[in-house]
Amino acid sequence: MLEAMPYEYGTKRRVDIEIQQPEFTSLCPMTGLPDFGCLTIRYRPDKKIVELKSLKYYLLQYRNVGIFYEHLVNKILDDLSQKISPLWMDVYGEFTARGGITTTVRTSSSDDH
Amino acid sequence: MLEAMPYEYGTKRRVDIEIQQPEFTSLCPMTGLPDFGCLTIRYRPDKKIVELKSLKYYLLQYRNVGIFYEHLVNKILDDLSQKISPLWMDVYGEFTARGGITTTVRTSSSDDH
Amino acid sequence: MLEAMPYEYGTKRRVDIEIQQPEFTSLCPMTGLPDFGCLTIRYRPDKKIVELKSLKYYLLQYRNVGIFYEHLVNKILDDLSQKISPLWMDVYGEFTARGGITTTVRTSSSDDH
Amino acid sequence: MLEAMPYEYGTKRRVDIEIQQPEFTSLCPMTGLPDFGCLTIRYRPDKKIVELKSLKYYLLQYRNVGIFYEHLVNKILDDLSQKISPLWMDVYGEFTARGGITTTVRTSSSDDH
Amino acid sequence: MLEAMPYEYGTKRRVDIEIQQPEFTSLCPMTGLPDFGCLTIRYRPDKKIVELKSLKYYLLQYRNVGIFYEHLVNKILDDLSQKISPLWMDVYGEFTARGGITTTVRTSSSDDH
Amino acid sequence: MLEAMPYEYGTKRRVDIEIQQPEFTSLCPMTGLPDFGCLTIRYRPDKKIVELKSLKYYLLQYRNVGIFYEHLVNKILDDLSQKISPLWMDVYGEFTARGGITTTVRTSSSDDH
Amino acid sequence: MLEAMPYEYGTKRRVDIEIQQPEFTSLCPMTGLPDFGCLTIRYRPDKKIVELKSLKYYLLQYRNVGIFYEHLVNKILDDLSQKISPLWMDVYGEFTARGGITTTVRTSSSDDH
Amino acid sequence: MLEAMPYEYGTKRRVDIEIQQPEFTSLCPMTGLPDFGCLTIRYRPDKKIVELKSLKYYLLQYRNVGIFYEHLVNKILDDLSQKISPLWMDVYGEFTARGGITTTVRTSSSDDH
Amino acid sequence: MLEAMPYEYGTKRRVDIEIQQPEFTSLCPMTGLPDFGCLTIRYRPDKKIVELKSLKYYLLQYRNVGIFYEHLVNKILDDLSQKISPLWMDVYGEFTARGGITTTVRTSSSDDH
Amino acid sequence: MLEAMPYEYGTKRRVDIEIQQPEFTSLCPMTGLPDFGCLTIRYRPDKKIVELKSLKYYLLQYRNVGIFYEHLVNKILDDLSQKISPLWMDVYGEFTARGGITTTVRTSSSDDH
Repeated sequence: MLEAMPYEYGTKRRVDIEIQQPEFTSLCPMTGLPDFGCLTIRYRPDKKIVELKSLKYYLLQYRNVGIFYEHLVNKILDDLSQKISPLWMDVYGEFTARGGITTTVRTSSSDDH
Repeated sequence: MLEAMPYEYGTKRRVDIEIQQPEFTSLCPMTGLPDFGCLTIRYRPDKKIVELKSLKYYLLQYRNVGIFYEHLVNKILDDLSQKISPLWMDVYGEFTARGGITTTVRTSSSDDH
Repeated sequence: MLEAMPYEYGTKRRVDIEIQQPEFTSLCPMTGLPDFGCLTIRYRPDKKIVELKSLKYYLLQYRNVGIFYEHLVNKILDDLSQKISPLWMDVYGEFTARGGITTTVRTSSSDDH
Repeated sequence: MLEAMPYEYGTKRRVDIEIQQPEFTSLCPMTGLPDFGCLTIRYRPDKKIVELKSLKYYLLQYRNVGIFYEHLVNKILDDLSQKISPLWMDVYGEFTARGGITTTVRTSSSDDH
Repeated sequence: MLEAMPYEYGTKRRVDIEIQQPEFTSLCPMTGLPDFGCLTIRYRPDKKIVELKSLKYYLLQYRNVGIFYEHLVNKILDDLSQKISPLWMDVYGEFTARGGITTTVRTSSSDDH
Repeated sequence: MLEAMPYEYGTKRRVDIEIQQPEFTSLCPMTGLPDFGCLTIRYRPDKKIVELKSLKYYLLQYRNVGIFYEHLVNKILDDLSQKISPLWMDVYGEFTARGGITTTVRTSSSDDH
Repeated sequence: MLEAMPYEYGTKRRVDIEIQQPEFTSLCPMTGLPDFGCLTIRYRPDKKIVELKSLKYYLLQYRNVGIFYEHLVNKILDDLSQKISPLWMDVYGEFTARGGITTTVRTSSSDDH
Repeated sequence: MLEAMPYEYGTKRRVDIEIQQPEFTSLCPMTGLPDFGCLTIRYRPDKKIVELKSLKYYLLQYRNVGIFYEHLVNKILDDLSQKISPLWMDVYGEFTARGGITTTVRTSSSDDH
Repeated sequence: MLEAMPYEYGTKRRVDIEIQQPEFTSLCPMTGLPDFGCLTIRYRPDKKIVELKSLKYYLLQYRNVGIFYEHLVNKILDDLSQKISPLWMDVYGEFTARGGITTTVRTSSSDDH
Repeated sequence: MLEAMPYEYGTKRRVDIEIQQPEFTSLCPMTGLPDFGCLTIRYRPDKKIVELKSLKYYLLQYRNVGIFYEHLVNKILDDLSQKISPLWMDVYGEFTARGGITTTVRTSSSDDH
């Protein structure tokens, strides 16, 4: 479902891209109740960038999927990295309060930045 | 009371987790009056992560306990570290004003980040 | 269209300049619909600075031009660099939500700052 | 007037403490008119911590004292350091506008953090 | 017009001072129309500090002076440095929008902080 | 699914209740894409109040239902009114931007307040 | 270009609708330079409501049209009223600063609400 | 526990008083879990006003009491009215989210203001 | 200096106009020091509206004029009313703090709205 | 200490004046500890207005005076009314938290506005 596009300035200059989906929703694997959050993807492309419309539909797929936060950000990072092979990529999720407690989870393809 | 869960991507990739309980309350050991604050726990798991519901009930236990701020954050860090052995962990408390003075206290298992 | 002015303190002291156009608009090359965003240009001049009125008219030219975000920031960086040869320059665009997703893109003539 | 308390985890783990008094007031030594500001004290204790109630009364003493901002933060840092010998300490004052001009002053026992 | 005062703790401890004038106004040298901005001066004194009332009157002098932003911050930095010889000093101006474009300019006596 | 509870002070004193679900989501009946919004229900009970947990599950039912905003608020008002016969009730929805345009819709059982 | 849809609850209950386009842009009829603003349309439908996608395209038409603010809001009110004959309608525009001055203009089909 | 004080200007002039306790906490009567909220009391005294310290201790009593929101505000209004016989009184509670849903409840001794 | 333009929809529909100059400055008649404030003009035109550019230059004239706040808003209301004979007009000034005290002054051609 | 000035437009047009002192401080008559608050005075003058500098010094007098909030606002209203005989006047005090509880008190010479 995810699609890639060529990055035209790839050999000349680096660009940092941040994409934010504040309307992300999936299901809690324990209770089946919906989780809501803001998902942020940051990356530096090598030769390919993510096509935004395909990314939107990719993220919509999680609407009826039960998955833990910690696995979710890792899975998105895996799927995107496989498609566009970025120089580095972060995936960051801020989830709304459950039982009064909010959780944010961040994973990264690298520790260096 | 605290429970641990395995972190599935532990051997492949690190994840940083931040959990925030803005409705924390305990008692002042001097006066017996309630203290209120926002408690933040940040950590990088090794092989285990904290189960959130058990953490919620663990923190609720302090509701009728008299304890100083400086000892509170250290005790929470001790209890959680013993349970899940994180690579590192911070515990941070922002307490509401008493006598016009606000206090924040932060302890950490490491100085390196 | 872009014009340069001499920087009088060039030999004596460095200055950092940030210019922000929060009313930038161009067209999406796929749909022809307008995109809106806030464009930020930061640079350290060598011997020349950008004349602000000419920059305003230069940016207005994109009003009816179809161009991708990633190429847009690179093109602006190219055009300005050619005109004033700065010591370094960043171009940063924050674009408003399309399909619920917001995007920010940043390019830079250097990795060092 | 200032009192110290032992820090129980001193040999085991460091803790960073921030105390904020947003209702600080003293007098201008030139005009006798009141100055208002927010005073922030941050420190890392060695073996002793400041008792908060005694600190509140210590700061209240400046209510009718004429003193310049630059000397004020230094004097508070001196008095507290002498009492609890912290590993490091900052004193930071943000003062409300006088003649349209706001002033903030920060002093520190060390340059290293 | 600018006056200096001795810094009493000069030999004992460093202090960082930030002075902000949010009501700065000068004239545009091209059109004669007024420019408005917030001017921020940060410095670490050596043996002398700026007397605030004299600084207020010094800045008021620009009310009917036509000067470019880039030269303005440099001139203020020159005048103040000559008077009090600080260890370092920054001058930073954030100017309100003209033609929809906002500009901020920052100069510094040193690159090291 | 909706449940009612008796209002104990009904014969003695009126109470105004406002319930807000900021994580409401349904589907667009045209495109099948998800809509997100904040739903607010305000009412003055007569003899019955809405049980909050049953209301939560009632609102969750719209997650995979395609419905227009204007009909949605009317349908919720109908369902709740039938269950608890309030003295009056408002239903108000603020929906996030689609195509750059945000929409809010409000319906009420009465024009009098 | 504007399209209407039937309002299903028209005979049963009134609904108030507010539509906001924060990315409105037209041209100044004097200078030809772009104006930007947030346009808000509020109305109570009788038997018809505005189709949102057609409204979006209708508002996009002003992108290259020169028109004064005071006439713009009146023209939009005329065009929409003719199409859907609302019980009442407001059109409200908040325009970004020109020459440091911001302007808001509001017109209404009625004085009664 | 609640105490009253005479209002000295009672025969001469009316005064409106608003008291806010943002750290209110009680228990949910269904689950035994804590509820948190901001409680606001507004009233116009006749001959007596509430003594603030006694009010603080009165509100603290609810810390380990299970009670519904709708009954809570009515009970506080009853207790205070009995003690000081105000000309009118409102009690308003804003409770933090449970299951994503926030609730506010307001009761009043009169409908007239 | 002030100029009027005809209001085209005058016979058909009323419009409310609000103009805000947040960069207003005049002089204090006592000290000669500059005052700064945000000036808001709201009015409903009859047959004429204020030309915005002429209004900008009119307000600039006060830059070097000493005048009290209370007289300033009345004088502006007089000058504008004489030029365009509005159905009603408000003039509202919010002035920045002097001696810690802020002042706002509002005058109106009518008490009815 | 309070001084009055004539209001020049008194026979021609009414003006509403709001004066705010956000740095008000007095003493608690029970404990002797300082209270802090924001004091707002609103009035419509008849023939006289309050001279601002004298008002500033008048309010400074409370710095070392012990007085209850409810009496404070009434006393200020009495003193000012006696001096300038306004058409109406409000005095409103918002006091910072004591024991977690904030209090606001408002008194007025009239119920009509």
